[in-house]
Amino acid sequence: MKQLRQITVIGLGLVGSSAALTVSRSPAGIKTVGYSHRAATRQKARDLGVADEISDDIRAGVSEADVVILATPICTFEGIFREIASALPDGCIVTDVGSVKVLPHRWAEKTLGRNVFYVGSHPVTGSEKRGVEFARDDLFVNARCILTRSPKTNSAALGRLRRLWTTLGCSVSVLTPAEHDRIFARVSHLPHVTAAALVNSGDPKEMRYAGKGFIDTSRVASGPPSVWTDILLTNSENIAKGIDGVIKELTKIQRAIRNKNARQIEQLLAQAAKKRADLIKYKVRKKELM
Amino acid sequence: MKQLRQITVIGLGLVGSSAALTVSRSPAGIKTVGYSHRAATRQKARDLGVADEISDDIRAGVSEADVVILATPICTFEGIFREIASALPDGCIVTDVGSVKVLPHRWAEKTLGRNVFYVGSHPVTGSEKRGVEFARDDLFVNARCILTRSPKTNSAALGRLRRLWTTLGCSVSVLTPAEHDRIFARVSHLPHVTAAALVNSGDPKEMRYAGKGFIDTSRVASGPPSVWTDILLTNSENIAKGIDGVIKELTKIQRAIRNKNARQIEQLLAQAAKKRADLIKYKVRKKELM
Repeated sequence: MKQLRQITVIGLGLVGSSAALTVSRSPAGIKTVGYSHRAATRQKARDLGVADEISDDIRAGVSEADVVILATPICTFEGIFREIASALPDGCIVTDVGSVKVLPHRWAEKTLGRNVFYVGSHPVTGSEKRGVEFARDDLFVNARCILTRSPKTNSAALGRLRRLWTTLGCSVSVLTPAEHDRIFARVSHLPHVTAAALVNSGDPKEMRYAGKGFIDTSRVASGPPSVWTDILLTNSENIAKGIDGVIKELTKIQRAIRNKNARQIEQLLAQAAKKRADLIKYKVRKKELM
Repeated sequence: MKQLRQITVIGLGLVGSSAALTVSRSPAGIKTVGYSHRAATRQKARDLGVADEISDDIRAGVSEADVVILATPICTFEGIFREIASALPDGCIVTDVGSVKVLPHRWAEKTLGRNVFYVGSHPVTGSEKRGVEFARDDLFVNARCILTRSPKTNSAALGRLRRLWTTLGCSVSVLTPAEHDRIFARVSHLPHVTAAALVNSGDPKEMRYAGKGFIDTSRVASGPPSVWTDILLTNSENIAKGIDGVIKELTKIQRAIRNKNARQIEQLLAQAAKKRADLIKYKVRKKELM
């Protein structure tokens, strides 16, 4: 298997520029190329040195890449696949860092040539901060990264990507695109929707009395609306179903409260506390939480 | 106005023992007495030195107190008021640190004598940790403390408590019990219910893929179920109404998702992000967040 010589990152937000920066600073000797469609972002990326080369031509930027990583909003993927398809060298691996996987697999199959290998990646990291100025070379350390494989996924390409993400610090799992989207609707997209609903239902003057609990519970609602709009649009069925699940649980607690059923309230709260304690224990054991 | 000479704290959990400890270590020269009905807790409190004196007799413990602070679960308040009423010295101020205020005011009026002054306190602090072993002398620093006054509240007593909480590090606001319970249903009790519903709707195996977003969004669900059961029971109407508000917002987002209405999804997410950004700015300005 040949050595990776060049990685091109398309989109220089927090995750894309952190990926470029981490590869640049690794001892693997891989050349990094970064592309952004915004001149101001390219300039900042050059100033910060997040990649060896910053390109303003997306097709030229990918023409010698062994791996291309899309780190743009999900709804741009299909258009970018079409734009770069004929510029990609034979054997190139194309991936992305989006939080939804079924549609990107479908778009890749439809638009990329047979000489190019698509694998989905989802490094579970990031923050409510955004932009190249927050690029970090340790963003992926101890993070989980999900790779998605469909029946058409090339196993060698998946293996190379697995090694790449491992080098960046991630612990890698493999799921099907459908499993991925169902699970992440629950553990990521739904918390976002719930946090937004909680904030939107509140009165700004009253919210000023909020303590640390409210601040933490609502933190993810500060994520970039445009990025999250794409996620909600492209994983709509799973998320809509998940919202039904949360509403069902809210209604159960509400009924217990209205009936002053102390035993049932305590049972529901204890169930949540226990499930979360088990989760934290698991995460600490896996070193994903300190 | 006479100097405070003795403060008695009933209930030596995290908040009660931290209050005792903070007063003990302050230079004000106030004697602190702590009471717990559990022998093991009293022993730990003695070992940790959270109060000058640890009593196993609740009536003896309050008999020379200028201020009595209840730091037990809310549903115990009425019984404790009855138990201590005839042991309280004339002019004694009784308060509590509970997260609900309408019912405690009602119970105090019904059970405490006319020679005793009840004022509600709600220091907005604490953590998902519990127990005397987590007592800290800085738990109240930069915390907000709400005092509640009804038409029957004695203004001098309120003033003395305001100075006490200020000395402990809090910034004090005054609300009516009804205002307090309406606002805290929104900013504290509802986030707890939402976090519990989110966790309860999830599958434990799938939750293992959770990242930092889920961990933070669900943190408050790890709070002690018995304490929170009391809160939900005693502020039931406000919370049940708040749940309706969250369900309404969830349904709004769900409809936008099902209709693939990108513009409306983004508008709802942007509204939440903006409201939260304003809140964070306010909190930082008030030095309640660093």
